[in-house]
Amino acid sequence: MLVLITYDVATSSAGGTKRLRRVAKKCLDHGQRVQHSVFECVCDAATLAQLKIDLRNIIDEEQDSLRFYILGKNYRQKIEHFGVKESYDVEGTLMF
Amino acid sequence: MLVLITYDVATSSAGGTKRLRRVAKKCLDHGQRVQHSVFECVCDAATLAQLKIDLRNIIDEEQDSLRFYILGKNYRQKIEHFGVKESYDVEGTLMF
Repeated sequence: MLVLITYDVATSSAGGTKRLRRVAKKCLDHGQRVQHSVFECVCDAATLAQLKIDLRNIIDEEQDSLRFYILGKNYRQKIEHFGVKESYDVEGTLMF
Repeated sequence: MLVLITYDVATSSAGGTKRLRRVAKKCLDHGQRVQHSVFECVCDAATLAQLKIDLRNIIDEEQDSLRFYILGKNYRQKIEHFGVKESYDVEGTLMF
């Protein structure tokens, strides 16, 4: 199934940029980075459960916000994109 | 149905902050801002079609990225949140 993960982190805060980089790296084990702090991961229920644990260990729950959206198996027709198609590497740098 | 809208905008670019504010204002007509550039809107197909037109008129498709995810009607069990529960006003300011 596809799981959308959105991560709101204050990158201006101490460690924020590092946390975003670590979240990105973990998500990229299972999918792709589609926006600066939006990730699409393909995983089964067991992998998702572990991913939640791993990400919650990375983020600062006092400062950051992390949301999971289950898009299921038939997700292709549920997604629409407009504007630039960017690819991010794990560091968050734009790659053209 | 619930539609998730994620907006990647370079707020450091000329006009980026203004575009984000305008996107937020438009989305808030139909739902809530759950993260800095993530919006959950409840609308029917016709409203969604108009919302897409309106948002595409606001964003800069040469610079920005806008994604729509259709979460359907039974969305409550598809969403999970961790970390801070923030409320944003339309200006993007944190409200506690």
